[in-house]
Amino acid sequence: MASLHTSLRSLCRSQQMILRYQSGYKLSTRIVLSNDRYRKSIYANDFRFFWTKRKFNEEWKSNYVFKSSAVVLALLTVGLSVYYLNGKRRSPDGSNAGVFNPKLPSHTLEEVAKHNSKKDRVWVTYGQGVYDITDFVADHPGGEEKIMIAAGGSVEPFWMMYAIHKTPTILAMLEQYRIGNISAEDAKVATSNMEDPYSKEPLRHPALRPNSLQPYNAEPPSVLLVDSFYTPTALFYVRNHLPVPEVDEQSYELQISGVGIKETTLTLDDIKKFPKYTLTACIQCAGNRRGEMSTVKPVKGLDWGSAAIGNAQWSGARLYDVLTSLGLKEDDPKVKHIKFKGMDTDVINVPYGASIPVEKGMNPRGDVLLAYEMNGEPLTIDHGFPLRVIVPGTVGARNVKWLSSIKVSGCESPAHWQQYDYKGFSPSVDWDTVDWSSAPAIQELPVISAICDPVNGASVKPNQGKVKLRGYAFSGGGHQVVRVDVTADKGHTWHTATLEQESARPPRHWGWTLWTVDVPVSPKASRVEFWVKAVDNSYNTQPETINNIWNLRGILNNAYHRIKVNITK
Amino acid sequence: MASLHTSLRSLCRSQQMILRYQSGYKLSTRIVLSNDRYRKSIYANDFRFFWTKRKFNEEWKSNYVFKSSAVVLALLTVGLSVYYLNGKRRSPDGSNAGVFNPKLPSHTLEEVAKHNSKKDRVWVTYGQGVYDITDFVADHPGGEEKIMIAAGGSVEPFWMMYAIHKTPTILAMLEQYRIGNISAEDAKVATSNMEDPYSKEPLRHPALRPNSLQPYNAEPPSVLLVDSFYTPTALFYVRNHLPVPEVDEQSYELQISGVGIKETTLTLDDIKKFPKYTLTACIQCAGNRRGEMSTVKPVKGLDWGSAAIGNAQWSGARLYDVLTSLGLKEDDPKVKHIKFKGMDTDVINVPYGASIPVEKGMNPRGDVLLAYEMNGEPLTIDHGFPLRVIVPGTVGARNVKWLSSIKVSGCESPAHWQQYDYKGFSPSVDWDTVDWSSAPAIQELPVISAICDPVNGASVKPNQGKVKLRGYAFSGGGHQVVRVDVTADKGHTWHTATLEQESARPPRHWGWTLWTVDVPVSPKASRVEFWVKAVDNSYNTQPETINNIWNLRGILNNAYHRIKVNITK
Repeated sequence: MASLHTSLRSLCRSQQMILRYQSGYKLSTRIVLSNDRYRKSIYANDFRFFWTKRKFNEEWKSNYVFKSSAVVLALLTVGLSVYYLNGKRRSPDGSNAGVFNPKLPSHTLEEVAKHNSKKDRVWVTYGQGVYDITDFVADHPGGEEKIMIAAGGSVEPFWMMYAIHKTPTILAMLEQYRIGNISAEDAKVATSNMEDPYSKEPLRHPALRPNSLQPYNAEPPSVLLVDSFYTPTALFYVRNHLPVPEVDEQSYELQISGVGIKETTLTLDDIKKFPKYTLTACIQCAGNRRGEMSTVKPVKGLDWGSAAIGNAQWSGARLYDVLTSLGLKEDDPKVKHIKFKGMDTDVINVPYGASIPVEKGMNPRGDVLLAYEMNGEPLTIDHGFPLRVIVPGTVGARNVKWLSSIKVSGCESPAHWQQYDYKGFSPSVDWDTVDWSSAPAIQELPVISAICDPVNGASVKPNQGKVKLRGYAFSGGGHQVVRVDVTADKGHTWHTATLEQESARPPRHWGWTLWTVDVPVSPKASRVEFWVKAVDNSYNTQPETINNIWNLRGILNNAYHRIKVNITK
Repeated sequence: MASLHTSLRSLCRSQQMILRYQSGYKLSTRIVLSNDRYRKSIYANDFRFFWTKRKFNEEWKSNYVFKSSAVVLALLTVGLSVYYLNGKRRSPDGSNAGVFNPKLPSHTLEEVAKHNSKKDRVWVTYGQGVYDITDFVADHPGGEEKIMIAAGGSVEPFWMMYAIHKTPTILAMLEQYRIGNISAEDAKVATSNMEDPYSKEPLRHPALRPNSLQPYNAEPPSVLLVDSFYTPTALFYVRNHLPVPEVDEQSYELQISGVGIKETTLTLDDIKKFPKYTLTACIQCAGNRRGEMSTVKPVKGLDWGSAAIGNAQWSGARLYDVLTSLGLKEDDPKVKHIKFKGMDTDVINVPYGASIPVEKGMNPRGDVLLAYEMNGEPLTIDHGFPLRVIVPGTVGARNVKWLSSIKVSGCESPAHWQQYDYKGFSPSVDWDTVDWSSAPAIQELPVISAICDPVNGASVKPNQGKVKLRGYAFSGGGHQVVRVDVTADKGHTWHTATLEQESARPPRHWGWTLWTVDVPVSPKASRVEFWVKAVDNSYNTQPETINNIWNLRGILNNAYHRIKVNITK
């Protein structure tokens, strides 16, 4: 624990901070930073972290309280930075990362803590490993000042929060900078007395397939997805950006404030007093089908299959009704966006945040709900208990869970997830050239479809020369899927599927479409490739291949879905 | 003229009609048929004609007045039918069609008129030619009963209305059924004393390139299109389905009726008393870029290039305001569609018709206008003087010109152009298998873009190794184009263009986007192929190739636009 203190001290000195320590080893200082103050970010996978030195100093001078998060912050930065080593010094294996290496010298935590500047070299620890990342500092995509905050400590408290760092690739990258060891006892100090941020996670259905445990992200097997028009709550994909927060329904409060509105606080009972609406909405992660995109060229993000999507009935109060009751006018020219924050927070207590345009949020036909029920039952913890936003037709990321506040504003949410994460770019934009401000935050999602049954690689026996395929299709913005075509001969012949969907008319068709088709296959075929594409009521259809829609974040993959199956006799 | 009378008489007998002739050779009987009574159709290119024998009889029994159109009708049917001969008996040349052929026997008009049933063989005349089309009757896509109405007369009065019939292909098809001649004097009878339905056509700008003169359909050179963000009215593409009607501004009246509304008649001055709105809207024909689609596989329709699109400022009263003033409620559950009729009518006095969903028409944010100005001036004749509907974000076909009536209804317009014409199908649907009721009428248009300058096949001299390209992009439904990418290497590298557009926020971004980009080309290249694709704010993008969006009507071609240019040094 000494190292934590040391690194924190050195960090604070270098940033001219004033620290207040609590007694003992438990750190309780705290930084409270408003979202507006983060302008830049660095991130890898779905981890993000915002900072500028100037802002950091401003914050500090404002005498905010400082907590263990400062250390964690520093350490995370290092962890993240390592992700960016980008093959400068490649090693094929991360299995030795943090393991005692008898060929290397030993160091004390005090010694490590002294290496907190480029002049003194920049060291971090992981397990029993000591790493000199000085040569990487200048290459850090988020800038030197960010990585320097992290100098002199362990990355592990962070990796307790973002367990996905512990991949062979990242560990191997880290191991390239290995210079020494600390003792086994010292190694324990880094995580001792740290509270596990994931201690409040609920139990999940065993059929869900996680691609990240911390934060928890999981999808059902696609073959189960098409068995139910309304996805069972327990099988609905879970996309958590942060640890699940602890929520007490009795003391729950929703803060509402902003331009043209009477600031107020509502309890759950208050929300339930508004007329209750129930609607069907398909919610989809922008990263759905990312796994396919990464086969074209690597992308950064969770490796979703094709089931990061679900269709449910949601019940709650209309956002329009709630805001109107507080005096907001539909056409107030000062209002452009409605911002939401969740109760889930990152390591520096920044909550999850997002916003939607006022044209959606304050449109009575936009059907945005403050939902407290999913499929007729109270929300589950993973889906935002006790209250979440449902923004039908809009990317999952704006459907903020564990809703803590609503702010009516002239500006978009400054949150990372709004400004830097969920945006699409040309295939020729890479991490060196990306200008996040040049693209709009995803709201409406494009038309998409997927074959769920059979799955890629399955063996199927044709029935009277035909293979039955089942899947889903969806189009954002309230569009209705009007046709789904499947081909078994690379587009020479298309077979139009039978659709199952609700009758809601566009532009308020918020649910998905399930489809079934029997496709003839050649009696001689031993292996067949199927493609599916959907068409919506605007006659938009899907792009044919991933190549020309590839993007560095691996999102918005709505290319034709293609599977290959083996034909058995 | 005897033949006209004879064929009309025989037609009427066969349909148990009662005729009232005017004195002399001028026929003034008239059929007035409500749109609701046409259920089926036959058509070729963009010509349409509706009938069923049963309905025809019903109409007749209702004692509607009959006019020359009955004859024209019959003749058009034959003309159209010929279009469907579909190579059953191919002839390479139509230049002899209707020319006296000394090798064939001569017939009188009376003799021709007797051949008005399959039992007696089905004859028609064109020029001095007599044709036995009996063998084609059963193949007629619209059904036998329709073509039988036409038996025994000349096709020429019809071809005065739809001059596009006089193509070498159609004439050659017709000539395959040649069996004889009529005298030069008899041939003149068919068209003598017929009023030219195109006598009221206005003068058009010489830069417009017609692909049909009667009805008039023309587009500007695409290179002119991108010179103006607001397309000059004189250069705005013209898509007329029928002859331009004669309109007297002083006596002009708009009929408004239907469910939940006070039936009323408004003058132009009445319309102008409503608040005047001005908005920018891009209007596009569903057939834009059909010419490219027909290179994949033949389609039926006008051979549009890539300039059947334009962007203008439109001013008028809001449909919402007008209907609301007449008592219509936004959420009247009985109202589903708003139907429009034009003053332009076909040969049986059926007016042009279309409808839009109430969700668009009665949405104050849908911005549907009853427009009387285009680019700050009164509408021109070709663009619907004195009043047309502007349905921003919606296919041109619903922007009804020369507006004569509005009807609020629970049903869609039964008009051919709503039910049979502007609908999209899978590439595997052909004229034998098409089920028009299975697809929705096009409303919102999908995202599209095109390179306008240089044009395909041009020679260009790079400037500092780069070629400048200019074009347009557009997405229906109020979507905003957020990115335009151009490639000169088949998608290996994409260059993002600079956009010119209005700042209107989606979902009310009704205007188009002009774009410019300088694309590097290899110094060694002598010929380069460029592709363009656009992305809108829903992150929908264009399909890559035409093959998988091909459809029998050749509409909705929003595949990547591709041009090849020669590089000069």
